[in-house]
Amino acid sequence: MKLAMIGLGKMGYNLALNLIDHGHEVVANDVNAAQIEKISTEGAIAAYSLEEVVQQLETPRIIWLMVPAGDITESVISTLVPMLDKGDIIIEGGNSNYKDTIRLGNELLEKGIYFFDCGTSGGVDGARHGICTMIGGDPEVFKTIEPIIKDTSVENGYFYSGKLGSGHFLKMIHNGIEYGMMQSIAEGFDILTKSEFDYDFEGVAKVWNHGSVIRSWLMELTENAFSKDPKLEGIKGIMNSSGEGKWTVETALDLQVPAPVITLSLLMRYRSLEDDTFTGKVVAALRNEFGGHEIVKK
Amino acid sequence: MKLAMIGLGKMGYNLALNLIDHGHEVVANDVNAAQIEKISTEGAIAAYSLEEVVQQLETPRIIWLMVPAGDITESVISTLVPMLDKGDIIIEGGNSNYKDTIRLGNELLEKGIYFFDCGTSGGVDGARHGICTMIGGDPEVFKTIEPIIKDTSVENGYFYSGKLGSGHFLKMIHNGIEYGMMQSIAEGFDILTKSEFDYDFEGVAKVWNHGSVIRSWLMELTENAFSKDPKLEGIKGIMNSSGEGKWTVETALDLQVPAPVITLSLLMRYRSLEDDTFTGKVVAALRNEFGGHEIVKK
Repeated sequence: MKLAMIGLGKMGYNLALNLIDHGHEVVANDVNAAQIEKISTEGAIAAYSLEEVVQQLETPRIIWLMVPAGDITESVISTLVPMLDKGDIIIEGGNSNYKDTIRLGNELLEKGIYFFDCGTSGGVDGARHGICTMIGGDPEVFKTIEPIIKDTSVENGYFYSGKLGSGHFLKMIHNGIEYGMMQSIAEGFDILTKSEFDYDFEGVAKVWNHGSVIRSWLMELTENAFSKDPKLEGIKGIMNSSGEGKWTVETALDLQVPAPVITLSLLMRYRSLEDDTFTGKVVAALRNEFGGHEIVKK
Repeated sequence: MKLAMIGLGKMGYNLALNLIDHGHEVVANDVNAAQIEKISTEGAIAAYSLEEVVQQLETPRIIWLMVPAGDITESVISTLVPMLDKGDIIIEGGNSNYKDTIRLGNELLEKGIYFFDCGTSGGVDGARHGICTMIGGDPEVFKTIEPIIKDTSVENGYFYSGKLGSGHFLKMIHNGIEYGMMQSIAEGFDILTKSEFDYDFEGVAKVWNHGSVIRSWLMELTENAFSKDPKLEGIKGIMNSSGEGKWTVETALDLQVPAPVITLSLLMRYRSLEDDTFTGKVVAALRNEFGGHEIVKK
């Protein structure tokens, strides 16, 4: 099939190559012309503007967006839409908030343009060689794009998740679970590192990946990390986050779901961003006030 | 090699068969004579008492215990020890507290008996066909029993973890991580089930097992569970626990490791054991006291 890929970052670039490998014709666009030139040497059709993207495709056009969620996604779509025809299809592959997806998708539907929200997991290597996709939108029109989704996904690695928004919602929850799993693994190793035993952490992660209940891709990545730096002495424990963990917690609050583990995983990330805390100062000051307990002065 | 397996429950029975498959001679004992008779028809050598166990083995004897942790383990060992000779080896394969292991192992070492603490993971099927083992004890004597441990473990699935106690400690932490991972997965599905979307949970777990970051054996078990009961309507959400989660949290407290995710996983299990809570009554009563907020009467 012929389709466009807009956004040639790490994910979009690799997805485009993945599509080309599967015999699809890919019209490639990015804000960075160098990326377009580069990928045109690897079999993609260069399109240096959104106008060119639209001109290069026959109706019904299929346009896959892999651009940063939020303002950039909204801006690309609002530029594209006036140039599109009824029946055209947009696949929105970013990590967008499902509420934005539903609003935007319904606006486009009113104009006769189909909108699919496609959450992806599996990282850059997955994008290149087979990703995991969760996709929501019109069930009938999905059949049109199913070959594309199937081809870029690992075997059994794509899932039509239901109505508009369900794909991005599912990806959000996936990331929330990921936060909790990562924090749990990390706390376990933190206890090991402070214990009376002197473990080879790479060996620990390796044995846990062979036959144990907690074997997992995350534990394999843990093994890789310790193989490069046995006690992770080269890095700081600063845990950044993108939106999905926060949105998962917000959604749990809205739906009144007690989700303490996912929530605490997020809060521990926030804690890691501060060298010192105002909470700590307040508690130290109070202990000093009521009990004369020692405080550490700056 | 020739060795004894004491304790023919689900794990011990299957480990014994696993050992027999690998050409080892297994002297089998249990408090339940029927289990001994049964396994003697599958190639094990019956021993109806601990005396018989000791008589059947040549020195240095190798005795693998797979009996419940705590009093039973202590009782079997205190009965065995007077019959053993210097140089004999006990492999303690239960889910024992590492502090008990260290105390007991050091007592035995004073008598010249070697003690290995062997944590196992992988469930009953793992015991039968290849388990994950973490084992601590004397590094030189370990070489004597290494062929046994290697044969019963899945490929790359055994790990000499260091000094006495390190095997059970590592198994404890493994289980703590398991608690957090399970709770995280469960919270994710809890949010999904209360969302506006109507997901096929088996399909969700399946796609997450193919190419996603959270692919794992636990997610595969999640997929299995939903394949049998799509919304788990046939079971109650009561989450029992054995000792290891609690010990992990106690150890984190002793070592002053902030481990909120593993801790909350345990506390949510305790919460699940109560239909109603006294905490709930106190909070409801207080809201009523200060604000006249409605309370639900029994």
